[in-house]
Amino acid sequence: MPILGPNQYGKAENRVVRITRDGATHHIKDLNVSVSLSGDMDEVHYSGSNANVLPTDTTKNTVYAFAKEHGIESAEQFGIHLARHFVTSQPAIHRARIRIEEYAWERTVGGHSFVRQGQETRLAQITYDGSSWEVVSGLKDLTVLNSTDSEFWGYVKDKYTTLPEAYDRILATEVSARWRFNWTDDTEDMPDWDTSYEQTKQYLLRAFAETYSLSLQQTLFQMGSRIIDNRAEIDEVRFSLPNKHHFLVDLEPFGLKNDNEVYFAADRPYGLIEATVLRDGREAKIPADLTNL
Amino acid sequence: MPILGPNQYGKAENRVVRITRDGATHHIKDLNVSVSLSGDMDEVHYSGSNANVLPTDTTKNTVYAFAKEHGIESAEQFGIHLARHFVTSQPAIHRARIRIEEYAWERTVGGHSFVRQGQETRLAQITYDGSSWEVVSGLKDLTVLNSTDSEFWGYVKDKYTTLPEAYDRILATEVSARWRFNWTDDTEDMPDWDTSYEQTKQYLLRAFAETYSLSLQQTLFQMGSRIIDNRAEIDEVRFSLPNKHHFLVDLEPFGLKNDNEVYFAADRPYGLIEATVLRDGREAKIPADLTNL
Amino acid sequence: MPILGPNQYGKAENRVVRITRDGATHHIKDLNVSVSLSGDMDEVHYSGSNANVLPTDTTKNTVYAFAKEHGIESAEQFGIHLARHFVTSQPAIHRARIRIEEYAWERTVGGHSFVRQGQETRLAQITYDGSSWEVVSGLKDLTVLNSTDSEFWGYVKDKYTTLPEAYDRILATEVSARWRFNWTDDTEDMPDWDTSYEQTKQYLLRAFAETYSLSLQQTLFQMGSRIIDNRAEIDEVRFSLPNKHHFLVDLEPFGLKNDNEVYFAADRPYGLIEATVLRDGREAKIPADLTNL
Amino acid sequence: MPILGPNQYGKAENRVVRITRDGATHHIKDLNVSVSLSGDMDEVHYSGSNANVLPTDTTKNTVYAFAKEHGIESAEQFGIHLARHFVTSQPAIHRARIRIEEYAWERTVGGHSFVRQGQETRLAQITYDGSSWEVVSGLKDLTVLNSTDSEFWGYVKDKYTTLPEAYDRILATEVSARWRFNWTDDTEDMPDWDTSYEQTKQYLLRAFAETYSLSLQQTLFQMGSRIIDNRAEIDEVRFSLPNKHHFLVDLEPFGLKNDNEVYFAADRPYGLIEATVLRDGREAKIPADLTNL
Repeated sequence: MPILGPNQYGKAENRVVRITRDGATHHIKDLNVSVSLSGDMDEVHYSGSNANVLPTDTTKNTVYAFAKEHGIESAEQFGIHLARHFVTSQPAIHRARIRIEEYAWERTVGGHSFVRQGQETRLAQITYDGSSWEVVSGLKDLTVLNSTDSEFWGYVKDKYTTLPEAYDRILATEVSARWRFNWTDDTEDMPDWDTSYEQTKQYLLRAFAETYSLSLQQTLFQMGSRIIDNRAEIDEVRFSLPNKHHFLVDLEPFGLKNDNEVYFAADRPYGLIEATVLRDGREAKIPADLTNL
Repeated sequence: MPILGPNQYGKAENRVVRITRDGATHHIKDLNVSVSLSGDMDEVHYSGSNANVLPTDTTKNTVYAFAKEHGIESAEQFGIHLARHFVTSQPAIHRARIRIEEYAWERTVGGHSFVRQGQETRLAQITYDGSSWEVVSGLKDLTVLNSTDSEFWGYVKDKYTTLPEAYDRILATEVSARWRFNWTDDTEDMPDWDTSYEQTKQYLLRAFAETYSLSLQQTLFQMGSRIIDNRAEIDEVRFSLPNKHHFLVDLEPFGLKNDNEVYFAADRPYGLIEATVLRDGREAKIPADLTNL
Repeated sequence: MPILGPNQYGKAENRVVRITRDGATHHIKDLNVSVSLSGDMDEVHYSGSNANVLPTDTTKNTVYAFAKEHGIESAEQFGIHLARHFVTSQPAIHRARIRIEEYAWERTVGGHSFVRQGQETRLAQITYDGSSWEVVSGLKDLTVLNSTDSEFWGYVKDKYTTLPEAYDRILATEVSARWRFNWTDDTEDMPDWDTSYEQTKQYLLRAFAETYSLSLQQTLFQMGSRIIDNRAEIDEVRFSLPNKHHFLVDLEPFGLKNDNEVYFAADRPYGLIEATVLRDGREAKIPADLTNL
Repeated sequence: MPILGPNQYGKAENRVVRITRDGATHHIKDLNVSVSLSGDMDEVHYSGSNANVLPTDTTKNTVYAFAKEHGIESAEQFGIHLARHFVTSQPAIHRARIRIEEYAWERTVGGHSFVRQGQETRLAQITYDGSSWEVVSGLKDLTVLNSTDSEFWGYVKDKYTTLPEAYDRILATEVSARWRFNWTDDTEDMPDWDTSYEQTKQYLLRAFAETYSLSLQQTLFQMGSRIIDNRAEIDEVRFSLPNKHHFLVDLEPFGLKNDNEVYFAADRPYGLIEATVLRDGREAKIPADLTNL
């Protein structure tokens, strides 16, 4: 007999833009909010009874109403308001997970004109089960490149190995990272979410730039370590790093020497390096596959 | 002190097309193969030593060489060959996970001309740790729609609820499904992977068509149950079903009555219903977030 | 002094789904309709006066209202209704261009359950200036492949040429095609748009399959010729054919012979072949760059 | 009898990255280059004879070789080198069109570490027929938003009009723009392409910010005028501006007042405003449909 296993439901990708006004100077918060609820949901699966189901349309309305009622101080704080609301106001809801993408804008001329930055997408995931919190923040689509200080050699060679060793290569990746905060309890002080994000991103970028790399794995570990060493509020960092291969073009057929100058930026296939860096003594909780986080 | 947590690496999205010839009649297999390896990989992260690292480029070469050496009988069988190879030939590799997307082609005129079907993408994931196998198959991008026999009412109403009840609505979703086989051991007979896939897809489509739906959750459970009830080789099915909303357009301002005829197909936000259906007594192992599987 | 040049405006990507009922058997039409209007629009650009501007929101409403009032017999017929309406009802509108994408669905089990086909997207563009009509139909995303009967040799060789000649290669492309009808006048009989589409697609597929190809340009011309020769209602066909390269993988380093069996399907770069095939004596009117048509 | 109409061919999307070194300080140019050639190409279409065909693979090689031989001073200058080469070195090639996308990087820490900016994609198209040049530059994906100073009222109302007038709305668009230079002749001084690009983008952003808008058309014309008035090297600007609708959410059902604070950012449909702004006395030459430029 088939039975129901783990399940959740909600409204995904609620696009909310919140404008606040400080005289003639406006501020903008631009989020994409996804709500996932779970709890006492057997009946809706077995018989179609919606008696325990808060409609996904209502969760959408709540996102917009809360943007007015609570404002959007930060993605994390906004998610905390939402998660707490669903779990505490609906007896059948035992867990809420709020995922948020945030798009950054910068002011151009005057107080109310903006251009979207486009560099990376900021991420936040807030999970609440009525007693403890899990906050995971992160980013995706941050593309970085070192034009030197990267090598790759000394690897295993089997009968299918043809790759020549490289002593000076381009190292490029599109960083997808998630970091978990050790804040779990309402009685503790919350981190300053925006400061934490900015600092974490800077440590990540600096570690990428400053690591003389013998493998992308080594660079990954250095990025994670830099964050763990410097941001006490973070216990775990998970990276998914596609190795965006830049192949040196063979120009010898044309009588030209390519002295690490001209590269072909390849699409597929790509190396994919994934790992977690942990504060010693803490447990890895971020799932292995990041794209959906 | 930061330490290394779970990690894996490999070459993603190796696009391999294999032609086989049966006289003037050709056959085509078109796969996108991603390899992820894990094992004794601390040093490459800590010091950059690649002594245990089989290069991702080698894993790519292996995919192409195996397409020649073993052929591609099915996505699952091909993944089994690859996973076994990496785990048994490399002492430092303790686990291999092969993910495959398969694109279907149908013959047009004559024996060697094809058109890509485009309906759904077939998926397979094969994981091997040297002793037992986990095979998860599935599909994505299969868009289905019922133009009637769907209702939604009797749900919880809180202060943010404005949704009117619906007694005859369009139900549409883009099915993303994964199913786990109970084959785990080389000594057991393998399923016939291709027959299993075709049958499972048909049961899924039939259950979607034949369920009079009071909620998308109910339809989901019926699809999963139909598979569990009819395919003994499958123990678990996980679905991620975006509710592709089709809103009835209000034509009254134009003096027209919309008798369930004209709909606006919306993009975002969308309801997202996710659940696992299990054979009774078995454990849920497919991760909650499907997109990356 | 800056002056205004060519301009148009309207609502793009109105997603309309129309259900019709024939007892328990339902029919579905699924369109994405974009409206572009032009005419006496200097003032809205120079001063911001909207006195001549029918809002884009109104053009959206008109799409949905017309789906009820006229039904959707075919994409082309629906576009004709819309274009005629805007030009004849609004004095300031002198030209209307309606672009439509159509997504095909096939019935599964019973009379009201459907699965989206996904193979190609059907296209139609209807332009009306108050006196004459231009109808261009077409398709995109139709991926086809011949596993043999394709060669490429005898080309120009300059100092940058390294490509070896090929005497048996895979030929694959993702067909983007547009064809222009010679129907321009309300007093003439209209083509049967749906029959014309199905036939044209079949001629295109057959010509692709049956042409022994010495170049993709030759195959393109054969596809266009087959249509012009067999479909009297069509005067012009424009193709944009990316050469989806399938490179034979070099397996010699692994002691394997690759006898046209194992290919790498590449993404970028790709050859891009674009050309128009005309009925003799007629003029080419479809613009060179197809993607936006 | 079918005959051949306009045609062109070449290699699209050659991804070339060029590193130059100024001691420890590296510079990066990251381009996506597409080549389209046309000329004496009847035979390759009619009979498949490639006697006049320079292979697309050779055009790819030429892109990479020229990145070494000429460097990449600017996208425009690089395209000029390529276009001149194909037309002057191949008797059968009578016209070359080079299209380039450029991705901007900024330095992070140290001299050789970069992060991709992501804000907009710079565009250039260079066409040469052996005697005169046409250079069109531009950008796409530049998303801008004014949180006030936008109205929309006084428009035509017909029986399908339901839109309420707006006296304070968000105006947002994703700018796609192309501008044509009046440099056409080798004997004239070339513009400084990079300075021209930076200045043109700034004028565009400033005009967007500073225009109190009664319609997106008016804003468009102001952006184009600002460029024509200030950049003597540019004769024509074409814009394609999707009106990225931000709808004020109705919070009244929840007892909340939405004083232009909370918006829903919609996807489809969207208004689409397209127009050309010209220097008086000059001719519009940029095609109406921009996306493919």
